[in-house]
Amino acid sequence: MKKALAFDIGGTKIYSTIIDETGNVIGEIDKFSTPKTLDKIKQILKEQISKYENKVDAIAIATAGAVNNDNTSVIGSTGNLPKGYSSIDFQGLSTKRVFLENDANAAAWAEYKIGASRGTNVSVMLTLGTGVGGGIIINDRMLKGKSGAAGEMHFKMYPDKRRKCTCGSWDCFEIYASGTALKLDAEEALHDKNVTTYDVIDGAKKGNKKMVDILERWQNDIIVGIKGLTNLFDPDCIVLSGSMAQFVDIKHVEQEVNSDIVTTPTSIRLATAGNYSGMIGAALMALKG
Amino acid sequence: MKKALAFDIGGTKIYSTIIDETGNVIGEIDKFSTPKTLDKIKQILKEQISKYENKVDAIAIATAGAVNNDNTSVIGSTGNLPKGYSSIDFQGLSTKRVFLENDANAAAWAEYKIGASRGTNVSVMLTLGTGVGGGIIINDRMLKGKSGAAGEMHFKMYPDKRRKCTCGSWDCFEIYASGTALKLDAEEALHDKNVTTYDVIDGAKKGNKKMVDILERWQNDIIVGIKGLTNLFDPDCIVLSGSMAQFVDIKHVEQEVNSDIVTTPTSIRLATAGNYSGMIGAALMALKG
Repeated sequence: MKKALAFDIGGTKIYSTIIDETGNVIGEIDKFSTPKTLDKIKQILKEQISKYENKVDAIAIATAGAVNNDNTSVIGSTGNLPKGYSSIDFQGLSTKRVFLENDANAAAWAEYKIGASRGTNVSVMLTLGTGVGGGIIINDRMLKGKSGAAGEMHFKMYPDKRRKCTCGSWDCFEIYASGTALKLDAEEALHDKNVTTYDVIDGAKKGNKKMVDILERWQNDIIVGIKGLTNLFDPDCIVLSGSMAQFVDIKHVEQEVNSDIVTTPTSIRLATAGNYSGMIGAALMALKG
Repeated sequence: MKKALAFDIGGTKIYSTIIDETGNVIGEIDKFSTPKTLDKIKQILKEQISKYENKVDAIAIATAGAVNNDNTSVIGSTGNLPKGYSSIDFQGLSTKRVFLENDANAAAWAEYKIGASRGTNVSVMLTLGTGVGGGIIINDRMLKGKSGAAGEMHFKMYPDKRRKCTCGSWDCFEIYASGTALKLDAEEALHDKNVTTYDVIDGAKKGNKKMVDILERWQNDIIVGIKGLTNLFDPDCIVLSGSMAQFVDIKHVEQEVNSDIVTTPTSIRLATAGNYSGMIGAALMALKG
C-alpha cells in the first residue's frame, strides 16, 4: 500500500506523520512549535524527510497560505508564518514527489474522501478556528481558481467598513464567524477588552443571558454567511470543522438556512475526519495522482 | 452544420430564432409578449416548434428559473412567469432533443464560448437587469450544484434585515446591485417614491451631485459583492451583462476590487455576446453534447 510522509504547517504548530493511501494514520504524530525563522522551519522539514522519505512514496504538506494549481509551491503571504515562507524550495526537500495543498482545502478533501461529505458532488467546508478557512469541492475536484487561492471566506458581511479583518480588508465573513470574531462580539457587547471566548462559551453554558446573546449573534452571522454560500454553490452539504465548530448548534443552523434560501435544502454537518484531516487530505491527494 | 431552434423565455418577452453550432444567429428574431397563462405560452412554443423543428437538430431553451442538472425541466418557482410554469412538459413539445438552461447560465456560456470570457478557466457572469442573474463556469463546466440552482446571487449584503429582496429573503446582493436596487437607493436618498432609474442615470450624466452619489452608492455595493465573489472563486474574469451593466464604470470597479482582495487580480469585463446571448448559449450547449 502506498504511503506519504505528511506535514501540517500552521502558524503555531507543525505536525508530521505517515499516512497510507486509504487515509489511515500509521505513524507516530510528531509535533513541533513553529519556529520564527525560515531556516529553522526548513530544518524541521529536512530532518523529518531524511528520517522517513525512503519508507514513503510522496511528501504531502498541508500548509497555511494559498498553494498554486500545480500543488508545488506556496503563493502569496501567509499571515502568521515567517516572512519569505512562500520562497521555500519545497520541491528541493526530497527526491520523492513533494505535494502541497492549502490546509483548509486538504482538510475538506479528507472530509470528502473519508469523512462528513463522502459521496457528495458539491460540498463546502468551513474551518472555524482563530480564523475561518474554506475548502470547496465540485464534481470530484478542489475549487482552486485561476491561481490556487479560491475558497477564501472573505466575502463581506457589511458594505460600509465596520470591522477590520485580519486580511487587511473590512467586514469579511472570517471576522464575523471565527473565534476571533466571537471575542470581538463579546468585547463590543460588554465594553470589555479582556473578555475571552472561553468566558462567552462557559457563561452561555451556565445560562448567563448576556453570554447567550453574544453566542447567538455570532451564530447568526455564521447562518447569514452560509445562506449566501448555499445560494451560490447549491451544495449537497456544508461541513463545519475547526475548534469553534463544536459551539455551533448544527441542527438550528440547518433549519434556519433551509428556511431562507432560493435553492433546495442543504445539509449542515460537523466534520468527522478528526484533528489530522489536513495531513490526511494532503496525503490522499498526493497519493492519488 | 448543426442548428438549434432557440427560445429565450422571460417574464415579459419570449424570443425565438435559429442558431448554428458556432453560435451564429441564422434565423429571423421572432418576438412575443409573454402570455399570462400556461396554455398560451405552450401554444407559442408549439407553433414555433412545428414551423422549424424539421430544419434543426435540437430545441434550445434559455428560461427564467432554475433548470435541473439533466437540462430537461424547470425546477422551483420562477417569479414573474405564470404559476405552474415548471410543470410544462418541455420534452413532449418536440421529437427532437429539447435542452433547457437557466437564462443567466446560458448567457454566461455564450460569453465563455464566443464572448468576453473566452479562453478562461474560471469565470463569473453577473447579469444586471431588473434583477441580478449569475452564471459561473469552472473548468469548462457550468456550476449547477446538487439540484441545478447554483449561481444565485442571493448572498447577503447586511446580516440584519434592512431591505427585502424579491426572493422573499433580506438584503441579498440582487436587491443592492440590480436596476430595482438603484431605484430603491434613489427613493431612500431622495425620499421620493416616484424617482426612476432613468432620473438617476440622466441626472448623474448631467452632473447632478445627488444623482452622482446615488449611482456611486449602487456601484459601490456592486464592488463589495464582486470582492466577495473574487475571493471565493479566484476567477480569471467577471463579466457584467444586462441592461444596467452599461452604467457601471468597469475600469474603476476593476481597480477597486483588485486593491482589496486576498487572491490575485481579476479582470472585470463587459459582456460582448449581445442581446441574444441567452439563446446562443443554450444553442451551443444543446448542440455540443
